[in-house]
Amino acid sequence: LRVERVRLAIIGVSGYAGAELAMLCSEHPAFSLRAAVADRWQGEALGACTGGVRGPARGLRVVPMRDAAAAALSADVALLATPAEVSAQLAPELLVRGVRVVDLSGAFRLTDPAAYPRWYGFTHPAPELLAEARYGLPEVPGAAGDAPRARTARLVANPGCYATAAILALAPLVARRAVALDALFADGKSGVTGAGRKVEERLLFNEIAENLSPYRVGNHQHAPEIELVLSRVAGAEVKLTFTPHLLPIRRGLTVTAYGRLAEGVDAAAIEAIVAGYFPEGGGEVRVVAPEAVTIGGVAGTNRALVGARGDADRRTAVAIASLDNLRKGAASQALQNLCEMVGVPFSPEERDEHE
Amino acid sequence: LRVERVRLAIIGVSGYAGAELAMLCSEHPAFSLRAAVADRWQGEALGACTGGVRGPARGLRVVPMRDAAAAALSADVALLATPAEVSAQLAPELLVRGVRVVDLSGAFRLTDPAAYPRWYGFTHPAPELLAEARYGLPEVPGAAGDAPRARTARLVANPGCYATAAILALAPLVARRAVALDALFADGKSGVTGAGRKVEERLLFNEIAENLSPYRVGNHQHAPEIELVLSRVAGAEVKLTFTPHLLPIRRGLTVTAYGRLAEGVDAAAIEAIVAGYFPEGGGEVRVVAPEAVTIGGVAGTNRALVGARGDADRRTAVAIASLDNLRKGAASQALQNLCEMVGVPFSPEERDEHE
Amino acid sequence: LRVERVRLAIIGVSGYAGAELAMLCSEHPAFSLRAAVADRWQGEALGACTGGVRGPARGLRVVPMRDAAAAALSADVALLATPAEVSAQLAPELLVRGVRVVDLSGAFRLTDPAAYPRWYGFTHPAPELLAEARYGLPEVPGAAGDAPRARTARLVANPGCYATAAILALAPLVARRAVALDALFADGKSGVTGAGRKVEERLLFNEIAENLSPYRVGNHQHAPEIELVLSRVAGAEVKLTFTPHLLPIRRGLTVTAYGRLAEGVDAAAIEAIVAGYFPEGGGEVRVVAPEAVTIGGVAGTNRALVGARGDADRRTAVAIASLDNLRKGAASQALQNLCEMVGVPFSPEERDEHE
Amino acid sequence: LRVERVRLAIIGVSGYAGAELAMLCSEHPAFSLRAAVADRWQGEALGACTGGVRGPARGLRVVPMRDAAAAALSADVALLATPAEVSAQLAPELLVRGVRVVDLSGAFRLTDPAAYPRWYGFTHPAPELLAEARYGLPEVPGAAGDAPRARTARLVANPGCYATAAILALAPLVARRAVALDALFADGKSGVTGAGRKVEERLLFNEIAENLSPYRVGNHQHAPEIELVLSRVAGAEVKLTFTPHLLPIRRGLTVTAYGRLAEGVDAAAIEAIVAGYFPEGGGEVRVVAPEAVTIGGVAGTNRALVGARGDADRRTAVAIASLDNLRKGAASQALQNLCEMVGVPFSPEERDEHE
Repeated sequence: LRVERVRLAIIGVSGYAGAELAMLCSEHPAFSLRAAVADRWQGEALGACTGGVRGPARGLRVVPMRDAAAAALSADVALLATPAEVSAQLAPELLVRGVRVVDLSGAFRLTDPAAYPRWYGFTHPAPELLAEARYGLPEVPGAAGDAPRARTARLVANPGCYATAAILALAPLVARRAVALDALFADGKSGVTGAGRKVEERLLFNEIAENLSPYRVGNHQHAPEIELVLSRVAGAEVKLTFTPHLLPIRRGLTVTAYGRLAEGVDAAAIEAIVAGYFPEGGGEVRVVAPEAVTIGGVAGTNRALVGARGDADRRTAVAIASLDNLRKGAASQALQNLCEMVGVPFSPEERDEHE
Repeated sequence: LRVERVRLAIIGVSGYAGAELAMLCSEHPAFSLRAAVADRWQGEALGACTGGVRGPARGLRVVPMRDAAAAALSADVALLATPAEVSAQLAPELLVRGVRVVDLSGAFRLTDPAAYPRWYGFTHPAPELLAEARYGLPEVPGAAGDAPRARTARLVANPGCYATAAILALAPLVARRAVALDALFADGKSGVTGAGRKVEERLLFNEIAENLSPYRVGNHQHAPEIELVLSRVAGAEVKLTFTPHLLPIRRGLTVTAYGRLAEGVDAAAIEAIVAGYFPEGGGEVRVVAPEAVTIGGVAGTNRALVGARGDADRRTAVAIASLDNLRKGAASQALQNLCEMVGVPFSPEERDEHE
Repeated sequence: LRVERVRLAIIGVSGYAGAELAMLCSEHPAFSLRAAVADRWQGEALGACTGGVRGPARGLRVVPMRDAAAAALSADVALLATPAEVSAQLAPELLVRGVRVVDLSGAFRLTDPAAYPRWYGFTHPAPELLAEARYGLPEVPGAAGDAPRARTARLVANPGCYATAAILALAPLVARRAVALDALFADGKSGVTGAGRKVEERLLFNEIAENLSPYRVGNHQHAPEIELVLSRVAGAEVKLTFTPHLLPIRRGLTVTAYGRLAEGVDAAAIEAIVAGYFPEGGGEVRVVAPEAVTIGGVAGTNRALVGARGDADRRTAVAIASLDNLRKGAASQALQNLCEMVGVPFSPEERDEHE
Repeated sequence: LRVERVRLAIIGVSGYAGAELAMLCSEHPAFSLRAAVADRWQGEALGACTGGVRGPARGLRVVPMRDAAAAALSADVALLATPAEVSAQLAPELLVRGVRVVDLSGAFRLTDPAAYPRWYGFTHPAPELLAEARYGLPEVPGAAGDAPRARTARLVANPGCYATAAILALAPLVARRAVALDALFADGKSGVTGAGRKVEERLLFNEIAENLSPYRVGNHQHAPEIELVLSRVAGAEVKLTFTPHLLPIRRGLTVTAYGRLAEGVDAAAIEAIVAGYFPEGGGEVRVVAPEAVTIGGVAGTNRALVGARGDADRRTAVAIASLDNLRKGAASQALQNLCEMVGVPFSPEERDEHE
């Protein structure tokens, strides 16, 4: 059976998301990690660099970034946990040689090439791939628009962490047209690993502890991503204002989203709309009371929690989603997409049933 | 000069806000603390119970709550840091004997007696005082409506911590009618001292650290308070949806507020509208860029930070305010109100000029 | 194969250690959880109470404490995560009916019945079992003295969390007589879960965050436990002074231990003595440089880190050990002992080899 | 009165200790801050750079380090909050021009020039000053040995943060010869500001939170400082082994110290020895029960807490001290020394009495 394992390469394995991905892939029986690429740990055994990696992947030597493309050729699928500009360069090189790609950066999440200089600071080198890339948010029907379905997709754009939470919170309400689409609001709060493994003064313990800071107000690259995907889900243009905040925690994020009820929608129906949207046992989303949507309930898991409530007096709705930014907001969602691409079960429970 | 000091009593001195108040009052040259009341520390010297108290107040013996009214008679003004239901009972008793009152609870913040069973869980014992109580938010013109001005007020209702932040963030925009009043949103995040000194499982370190929890979604008693005061400021009905979250920090809170721009309002004008609303040197509010509105910038100070920005593409505005929930959200604002009532400068800077 | 799984009961499943134990046991292929006992969650499905439980154990209904003995009769081995006084009552009842016991409390760690009133506050109801109980610290030869070996033991006393760390740090040095035995010192620092799921003011976030508190100075019940076991290991009386401190973290503890070098011992030999004591691949202890003995390196794992260094100028040695108080300090060590009792591999790596 | 204020310069004002010093000096009525020097904030107004500065010092422009000596000439006393190597260069330049110096670095704490390459990594440029420098720990008689007394001292070496705590904990016991001097142990735990404002990966929130790390085991520069000063206090050689640990807090440190009781000393006498050593009202040290020596009790204050207890069974003593590393461990102790040098009261209480 082992000879049939799908071969993987992880590019950018030394970042928080890349290391998490290495751990998760090493535990999944359907995959075999063949290449791990990063400048930081080059030459070392992967198992010595990062704690949770299991099995043969522990002995894998980390290869420097200059050899990324060559290393990835040994794999059936390459997982890119690299900055958007690096992914945008690397993905076309790999695809042309027949390696499928799951990209964890924003390089293939937006469809309009013109958006890249504005939001990511570079001119996209492969704009023709933007239409082809599949937006990989498995629990949200229609999130990927007209892109190929997972089994045939060559290139999957793994969603942003805030974007995953905001879309999970609001997709049920925009899909059912329960809220006015012209002015939604999303207030994000994330732990520090969301910023990546950067040695910057603003990320020092002394700056983060006992603090909360808004950042990139009106200017975060996940805002156009959320609008694009929710517009697909709604089948109409959605406008959303997003403000992220940095929390004094390590992992996990919450998005609290707000909108006005659409005419004729009963505030009391909001909870049922959300509960009915995500089928039980379907994917990694659990619907709970909004007060139970906590970061403590998702940190270290692959799960997202979603809860919502309508306000009859004010004719508004609140929808809240929490997830672990390194799991459902990055690495475990990438693995989930990978499993869909190759047709194997993702979660241990699914695997139990599959066996 | 010292013989003319205004005599104070603090009822509920053992709570977080009460203890902070004792410290601040003991440092202010215009006041003399004559009575400190609380069951928790009864019989002990105030200075032995709580660190920062200075001067003669250190030796003051704490008196039990059953003697609160009697103890307060020795004072010109009583500061009530007690639960709303206790304040509602105590304030009328004191006023009738000529003791002026600053109440830190919600007992006199709302004007409609019918709101008390709904939001505070008791029938108000002194509904006739609700119209007389002055809502004490010094930096916001019109916040107190038709109540007596501070110098003549007998009863000041000190604003709620979230309410102070939400009103400071939105008052400029509603006063200038820069946003649509029918659907404003306020997302609150507060440190644990906002919940008071309660020994509850949800406030244990193990529950709070590395966590974020929404609570009382659509059901927090500060929502009607904010709506009431912003409606006064706007001169028209304001509807606001509020969601509070518990942060893994000890002190400080941030409210991030959202609204749709009113017709004809330029998104680029939002920052100037907020900056122009709070005159420089007027009170404890500083207007900064929204990214600079951090809890780290206000914790342990009497200051509130406010920042705002318009979004031209989405026709929306974001306004953010941060403050220390035990200072500008409770004790220092109470002292500020007290200073207005007796006509002495509040801040050290003002005092320097006054001398 | 599944019919041969060893049947387990966990008594006290709602505490931090009990819940961790349920999770670990549910993931181990050699065991089948048949009973979960606790008053807190009674009547609920175990999987709904605590996140990480997997497989059939998720559906197990929690039984109240009054039915503990009856419930445990369905098991081959009962794991007691109960207060010492409860364990001391329950263990004899179970043993007499042929159920083997692993006890996570201190009820069977000391050998002198007279020590119980002093350190645990009760007269021991089954003093005859104290000699029989096996002290279960697998990596330390001789820790259990003359008790039966694991395969035949009926009753295993799972070591205390601080005791495990202190003994792992010092066992190599006392076994080799590298330090003077008359005056060792152990300075402990533990996260809050070490205190159990107690709703006490001292464990509130506001009391723990940005704080460090020593407690039970010269009076902690792990001190006699450490002395007893180190004396067995040394074959001579060991005296140790222990001071625990409460850290502002959730999980994990470190013990930093100090002693004077024995005459003739070379300070430079200390590191090699420790490294040589724990054979590679033997158990859950990893020897590293003392600066690498961090809580971050063990939290959420079954591993203990140990490091040591001699000081030639001062003729002293420092030995440091870190572990997760809920894993190697409680639940995973209990599972490790359980595996030894029934002769199955403990760790995933061992299991891989075993299959 | 104002013309007589002592003029100060702070060199290195942008570090954590320097900024704290600026705040404390600006609040003290006996001093006038004339120069603030740092590269980081050069050209900006001091009050805009750091929150708590009061009065005229707010408007002071920060001068770059290349102008440090020139700027300091405007002052009667220069406070050096600079790295040891910078202080060692700067102090002689200032002294020769008649400016007195309080140095917060280690540049003048040791007396043996040969110790500098080993512990501080540079050859001392002014070894002749090492004998003259006064070790400024006001509450410990004899700490400064034969150096000039404070009123006449030209150069004061402000003690290290760990050293202050370790010496305060142990001075009473070594002065009274209550413990064996040949092998004392000090276990230190400090918040991250003790490391200074350094942008290093090990100081990121993600590395520090939920962690505890020992560092420089057997190799910290405060060890020889503590031994030197305790030897002066004891009048005999003291040997001390010191291990520091990094805590997940921002401010504050604790040193837990251990020793064997000297022959004939009663364990029960230890508490009284410590309590009797520090006279009530003398300085910033408060003696309390060892369990009350918490970081929460000193953070943000100028106070040190000290507690001790003997162990009769083991013939040992534990002594614990806590202080705020930026206050009593750095800036407030520097101001305390400065006040002694110029003969003005240090604390607000003293000042009240002085007026």
